[in-house]
Amino acid sequence: MSSLDKLIKYFETFPGIGARQARRFAFHILTMKKEDVSEFSTLISSLQDTVVECQSCRRFFAQNGHQNLCRICSDETRDHTKLLIVERDSDIQSIERSGVYEGLYFVLGGTVPLLDSIEAKNLRGGSLKRTITERLSADLSEVILGFSINPDGENTARFIESVIADIPEAKSLTVSHLGRGLSTGSELEYADPETIKSALQNRH
Amino acid sequence: MSSLDKLIKYFETFPGIGARQARRFAFHILTMKKEDVSEFSTLISSLQDTVVECQSCRRFFAQNGHQNLCRICSDETRDHTKLLIVERDSDIQSIERSGVYEGLYFVLGGTVPLLDSIEAKNLRGGSLKRTITERLSADLSEVILGFSINPDGENTARFIESVIADIPEAKSLTVSHLGRGLSTGSELEYADPETIKSALQNRH
Amino acid sequence: MSSLDKLIKYFETFPGIGARQARRFAFHILTMKKEDVSEFSTLISSLQDTVVECQSCRRFFAQNGHQNLCRICSDETRDHTKLLIVERDSDIQSIERSGVYEGLYFVLGGTVPLLDSIEAKNLRGGSLKRTITERLSADLSEVILGFSINPDGENTARFIESVIADIPEAKSLTVSHLGRGLSTGSELEYADPETIKSALQNRH
Amino acid sequence: MSSLDKLIKYFETFPGIGARQARRFAFHILTMKKEDVSEFSTLISSLQDTVVECQSCRRFFAQNGHQNLCRICSDETRDHTKLLIVERDSDIQSIERSGVYEGLYFVLGGTVPLLDSIEAKNLRGGSLKRTITERLSADLSEVILGFSINPDGENTARFIESVIADIPEAKSLTVSHLGRGLSTGSELEYADPETIKSALQNRH
Repeated sequence: MSSLDKLIKYFETFPGIGARQARRFAFHILTMKKEDVSEFSTLISSLQDTVVECQSCRRFFAQNGHQNLCRICSDETRDHTKLLIVERDSDIQSIERSGVYEGLYFVLGGTVPLLDSIEAKNLRGGSLKRTITERLSADLSEVILGFSINPDGENTARFIESVIADIPEAKSLTVSHLGRGLSTGSELEYADPETIKSALQNRH
Repeated sequence: MSSLDKLIKYFETFPGIGARQARRFAFHILTMKKEDVSEFSTLISSLQDTVVECQSCRRFFAQNGHQNLCRICSDETRDHTKLLIVERDSDIQSIERSGVYEGLYFVLGGTVPLLDSIEAKNLRGGSLKRTITERLSADLSEVILGFSINPDGENTARFIESVIADIPEAKSLTVSHLGRGLSTGSELEYADPETIKSALQNRH
Repeated sequence: MSSLDKLIKYFETFPGIGARQARRFAFHILTMKKEDVSEFSTLISSLQDTVVECQSCRRFFAQNGHQNLCRICSDETRDHTKLLIVERDSDIQSIERSGVYEGLYFVLGGTVPLLDSIEAKNLRGGSLKRTITERLSADLSEVILGFSINPDGENTARFIESVIADIPEAKSLTVSHLGRGLSTGSELEYADPETIKSALQNRH
Repeated sequence: MSSLDKLIKYFETFPGIGARQARRFAFHILTMKKEDVSEFSTLISSLQDTVVECQSCRRFFAQNGHQNLCRICSDETRDHTKLLIVERDSDIQSIERSGVYEGLYFVLGGTVPLLDSIEAKNLRGGSLKRTITERLSADLSEVILGFSINPDGENTARFIESVIADIPEAKSLTVSHLGRGLSTGSELEYADPETIKSALQNRH
């Protein structure tokens, strides 16, 4: 396999990229300036050294010095009684943009698919257990499960509940789920029964 | 204009139908059996006599005898303390399918577009005022605004609130809105700030 | 079944219309003016009397008096040596819009699906045979097969060729197919091999 | 700007990639194995050395040794009397897949947009002129313009014709265009007049 084909194979493993676009990416690099290719390649090879996983919430952050905690986890003014568990780093960005959550996060690193119980092994269940145990000895009082409203998200919520049930110190911990209802843009006519039910129950 | 073209023009006024599909409809009728065309045409010409507006909720129903009220409004076992105001007949179907609402309805007949205040004239504001006033003398205690979560829906909610504010007897009436949050299928990453805010506030 | 539901069932048989839109159509009629409903219903019930099938090309046309032939078939200035066979009435409109065809047409009334040989019975094969035989005694010299470029279209072309092979007088008749190649908007990169092959062979 | 953000900016310049997917790519690299990141980055930094432009057709090819010509241009059995000019490398792949073209290629490197005459400067017009002149002294007799059937493609064809008109030796050169007509999957009803016109003219 030529080095061009090898490179294309790598791009094919990128999220959402098929054979044709992977090939376009390689051709794109062929048309880049020599110095840009050099900087781009260096940024890639050094990425795992400069961007590290936060030791508390497990999200990636650009390390600036030798800190082990990300900006949010090391912020003393955040509400340390709340821990919101999400699937991906990008979920945190969406929530921070909404500006209404002041607590801490934990990035699980994926979901537990309904049809594939083995997947759970790749998730940070053990790490979550340690983080919750540590934070309980401080002042953690509520864990919020922030997963998508679909079968995998619901299965993941059940998995987390079982992880928490295994922590003896977590007896008094409140475990809550994100509220359901009509989301922005929802039209009543096309809403499913479950959403309508929540919308009626959570009316205000 | 030929009678074919006249018919096509009528079909072009149907919701969601353009010139090409309107023409297809006419050709479809040309290929229907003679007796089917005859029944179809009779059903259309007599529709407005057999399907009437419920005198209370204003939705259309197939009249079977001489009743003025639809099946829901004439059902004594429904919860007459609640009135859910919706835009269209089809919204009632979606809500009934969810099986969680036991109260009554009122079909406004449209929304009040944010940019077109005149539209409100075509809506059943006066009729709503009468229905609320009548039901207040019975035991109505809550009006639920069931509009879509978009600018027009929110503007319509404001319009209804002003209609209700004009009813002297409605002082103690509770006016509520459908709950917002993540709807079925919502992914956190793509949720807008307003939806995330509601989902966090309505966590349970 | 109520007359409302019967009407909805009729609309569900219309091309491209599902249950939800069929219901909307019925509600749309409920909101039409009484006199419009009356005219609309009359246009439908009289359509099959005013719009008739051309006795030669079999397309529908609005009869104006008692003629049996449509505007095209009765036009002496058209080129009667050519007969273009198409699937549907609407194909004729597309071709007439291009302004390059001066010959006559024949509307087959459908295609012969690759997987359903019985379908051919509903097509106007016999009628086509008669039309070709009649026109051969005049000056017909070429039949052009104007079907879509897909398996059903190609199967239909084979069906027509077998119909023509059954006509003893048609020995010297030329049977031609529409030219293939890049169509407007085609991008070379996404073109299939067959299209590229034709485009190269038909280069000019 | 952090190195993470710098890397994301690079990915945003990739064809078809927006801010969100660029970020996902960076996170994807964070989850890759250390040795894979290293190989991937090396493949990128060395790509421009291993993949070079063919000195004749200008397409990129993986150099294996020190040859200046790609596999096609150095193939003596190809038909050297024909030169097919295309926009992009990927067009050549599509045409080779069709298996009907035996001649040579030239990759222009883009189109000449109808509204931006300056763009032509970035194209390989000069290089094309040299290639044609050289090949004319051998046995080139036909140049085929293989551009997309849209305004930019047609404008590019005019640009190439003007380039060729500037070559004194090219007087007897045939310049041809790809054939137009119905492409695979085309339905007559939706075909534009220009395509129908070509389909009728190229009937066979």
